[in-house]
Amino acid sequence: MSTNYVEPDALVHSSDPQHPANHICTLCAKFYNLGWVTGTGGGTSIRHEDKIYIAPSGVQKELMQPTDMFVMDFATKEYLRKPQFHKPSACTPLFYAAFTRGAGCCIHTHSQWAVLVTLLVEREFGKDACFEIECIEQIKGIPKGRGKTGNLGYYDTLKIPIIENTAQYVSLPPFFLDIMLDCSRIPDAMKREEDLTSSLEEAMEKYPDSYAVLVRRHGIYVWGDNVHKAKTQCESIDYILQLAVEMKKLNLPWTSPK
Amino acid sequence: MSTNYVEPDALVHSSDPQHPANHICTLCAKFYNLGWVTGTGGGTSIRHEDKIYIAPSGVQKELMQPTDMFVMDFATKEYLRKPQFHKPSACTPLFYAAFTRGAGCCIHTHSQWAVLVTLLVEREFGKDACFEIECIEQIKGIPKGRGKTGNLGYYDTLKIPIIENTAQYVSLPPFFLDIMLDCSRIPDAMKREEDLTSSLEEAMEKYPDSYAVLVRRHGIYVWGDNVHKAKTQCESIDYILQLAVEMKKLNLPWTSPK
Amino acid sequence: MSTNYVEPDALVHSSDPQHPANHICTLCAKFYNLGWVTGTGGGTSIRHEDKIYIAPSGVQKELMQPTDMFVMDFATKEYLRKPQFHKPSACTPLFYAAFTRGAGCCIHTHSQWAVLVTLLVEREFGKDACFEIECIEQIKGIPKGRGKTGNLGYYDTLKIPIIENTAQYVSLPPFFLDIMLDCSRIPDAMKREEDLTSSLEEAMEKYPDSYAVLVRRHGIYVWGDNVHKAKTQCESIDYILQLAVEMKKLNLPWTSPK
Amino acid sequence: MSTNYVEPDALVHSSDPQHPANHICTLCAKFYNLGWVTGTGGGTSIRHEDKIYIAPSGVQKELMQPTDMFVMDFATKEYLRKPQFHKPSACTPLFYAAFTRGAGCCIHTHSQWAVLVTLLVEREFGKDACFEIECIEQIKGIPKGRGKTGNLGYYDTLKIPIIENTAQYVSLPPFFLDIMLDCSRIPDAMKREEDLTSSLEEAMEKYPDSYAVLVRRHGIYVWGDNVHKAKTQCESIDYILQLAVEMKKLNLPWTSPK
Repeated sequence: MSTNYVEPDALVHSSDPQHPANHICTLCAKFYNLGWVTGTGGGTSIRHEDKIYIAPSGVQKELMQPTDMFVMDFATKEYLRKPQFHKPSACTPLFYAAFTRGAGCCIHTHSQWAVLVTLLVEREFGKDACFEIECIEQIKGIPKGRGKTGNLGYYDTLKIPIIENTAQYVSLPPFFLDIMLDCSRIPDAMKREEDLTSSLEEAMEKYPDSYAVLVRRHGIYVWGDNVHKAKTQCESIDYILQLAVEMKKLNLPWTSPK
Repeated sequence: MSTNYVEPDALVHSSDPQHPANHICTLCAKFYNLGWVTGTGGGTSIRHEDKIYIAPSGVQKELMQPTDMFVMDFATKEYLRKPQFHKPSACTPLFYAAFTRGAGCCIHTHSQWAVLVTLLVEREFGKDACFEIECIEQIKGIPKGRGKTGNLGYYDTLKIPIIENTAQYVSLPPFFLDIMLDCSRIPDAMKREEDLTSSLEEAMEKYPDSYAVLVRRHGIYVWGDNVHKAKTQCESIDYILQLAVEMKKLNLPWTSPK
Repeated sequence: MSTNYVEPDALVHSSDPQHPANHICTLCAKFYNLGWVTGTGGGTSIRHEDKIYIAPSGVQKELMQPTDMFVMDFATKEYLRKPQFHKPSACTPLFYAAFTRGAGCCIHTHSQWAVLVTLLVEREFGKDACFEIECIEQIKGIPKGRGKTGNLGYYDTLKIPIIENTAQYVSLPPFFLDIMLDCSRIPDAMKREEDLTSSLEEAMEKYPDSYAVLVRRHGIYVWGDNVHKAKTQCESIDYILQLAVEMKKLNLPWTSPK
Repeated sequence: MSTNYVEPDALVHSSDPQHPANHICTLCAKFYNLGWVTGTGGGTSIRHEDKIYIAPSGVQKELMQPTDMFVMDFATKEYLRKPQFHKPSACTPLFYAAFTRGAGCCIHTHSQWAVLVTLLVEREFGKDACFEIECIEQIKGIPKGRGKTGNLGYYDTLKIPIIENTAQYVSLPPFFLDIMLDCSRIPDAMKREEDLTSSLEEAMEKYPDSYAVLVRRHGIYVWGDNVHKAKTQCESIDYILQLAVEMKKLNLPWTSPK
């Protein structure tokens, strides 16, 4: 036992409401009321110094307790604490990808606005398009990008990349790929459902300024330098996604004609 | 008095929030806020060992107290406890049908999304069609079926059967049946409004993997192996039904063309 | 001072949450969260034996205290208690009209669904039409009518009359009336904005079975034999009005073709 | 130190829930639940005698504490209290413009209904048009204008001016102005993003009876003689804006043809 060893349960017991194990619980209860984590969907993770705190899989997010948390060592990726009756979140590698790029908190929601926007973008601009919107005040709630100073301005275009929910089909002929992406029935063996990590990382590299990635027919990942920023950026983006859906219902364009 | 006799009121008094009589109250208060049980509509029932706990008919669901509960013996179908001023829920035989198929909890909501989906399916696919949707992440919140391991995958199609709200018109000529199903005025004697049980059971037999049955112009019944599963499955399905209605407003298809 | 005299403030002080002065406060706080009484709009009144308790005009409905209540003698229509800084509700004569027809509680909301339904009915069926809908389970939450036993059935048609928001223009030539009803500018002297009572009473006489009257571009009045019934009937009707608006967005008809 | 000097922290410590520093916190928590101040957007300010209390920039509005407040001297515009870790709200000069015209409280929201209405008005009536609606009961929640007695009547038209979110482009040729207003990319040096004050004041002078100004693609400013009036007028206007959006979805006109 190293000198750094901490009793696993001590990692999640604190009277400080800002302690990550407590904070994740209050955040997720709030997210439940916003419709973001219904039916055990979605999740939240906080990096605190050399540790990552992660909400477990399959729990009712509005009822979580600090003792439900997984705690992982950031450097070694080893679990410092595993709650006895829970499974680790399938989002863990995706949260980790955000943390390795400097994030302090990452939020994953199944917001219906996010799902609808991915479908509207696909129909209107194709599968390779980002979601783009401009000239909406709330855009000013999103930072310009990592290492840059300040937030986006009103005239800036907010771009959020979209990845396919299950994107990794290797060595298949193109026509087969097309069929699969149209959601036809495919043999189970060809699907790897939780394999979003590499396409998320690819999107993060291609759009290094983005603090969010939409996942088609699934939801969104939003991160920030700390809990405050991740939460408020997630709110601002969700507001914009809801507005974008309402704009389409009223036949209002997201960007001006170029 | 047998040795197993328990004082009726003792069946609903417990300091454990997970006790069925307490749990139904907290669940229904939550369901009220979700708009599922407005105006005394809807209901919830829990099977606990050899007993069934059932919310009464005609009460404000957000105000229920444990002492409002009916308690029924599962084997004999006899009431072990009847609250003095309440009527038993008309849903009792429908809940019972789920319990005999292994459910531990059954939830009935009047969710508007459920009602609208039944109307949209009827208009687009006819009265015999199920609701079908595919390639939505939240589908992974629904188990594959009783006796099967694991949940549906992203590429699986979620199918929820739809039954008519009052379906039993026996020995009537077909043209008359057509008239009635179009909701024209029919003599009262020909209607049996609470006679959904046999059509629900028929749907359960025809779709043995389904954990839910939609009722046209009425709502939905969702059940699960235990309270946690019934509640989270009901949330996942309601999320999908809401999304499905919004998709139709935006002219987005539920399934890919076959 | 008669022997029946009660100190005015004693009329609104009670530790019983079911006491009308307390009950109106908890109901209105709930109605605020439902969006029914925003911006001081709407109101609620309870008849208790020979007294009527009425929420005042112009107060924030979610913040009301029992001491804000007006209390009126039912027989004499005299105020037994007037809070010092409030104005009586302009709805008082309308609530009174319901109480003289046997109601124990009357609720007035500015529900947006009610307003939208009055506009949709006018456009589709004209100014004299009722709102009519059939074959929706929630209709079973509404009683058949005063003095009749039981509630409406699934196959019954729910009819709610609609009155104009300001309907009394006497001794004007018909063409002028048409202009006014189209909401063009009319001299102020010709308008009596709070004069809904006689048209409400006319609707109550014409539709003696109705427990609700819609007011065009304004909202709805719903009443019931007691607080429980008024509240749950108001919820059931509001649910149906919301559903009716969503049905129109999806181009679904309210009734089958006759 | 003058004899009027008050210890800065004493300005925000009070056990009275109506004290401005406390009141702003409870109001903003309510506004968060209404979706008006999501993601740190929006704000609220109260004038109390010779002092102005202002919520800071960039904080989660539902979590604010009295100690987060800025306090400004109304006459000198000097800060009497600056919280150590916050930035003053960019809305301060806009709130101040309302206070110099007699307001006691000013509320700024990012309500999506406000944003959508500004877009619908622009498309249908052009960039110079006000939002206009008539014959909606809730209009009676809005006063006739400063120095006038009473509120608008049902037949009055509610007019709310709309200003551009960033309107000040001086000495540019008209064709360039058109391009910019279409939100095309413009050199950063030409934009002054927080320079809404003069166009807000211009709208206040042009429409002296208005208690609200919409900001295109941004939100709304609503003020009132005191906190009660500002809050209830903001609720009434937001109700009307939401109704107006729903009316457009259902193809219902806001005003009768003239």
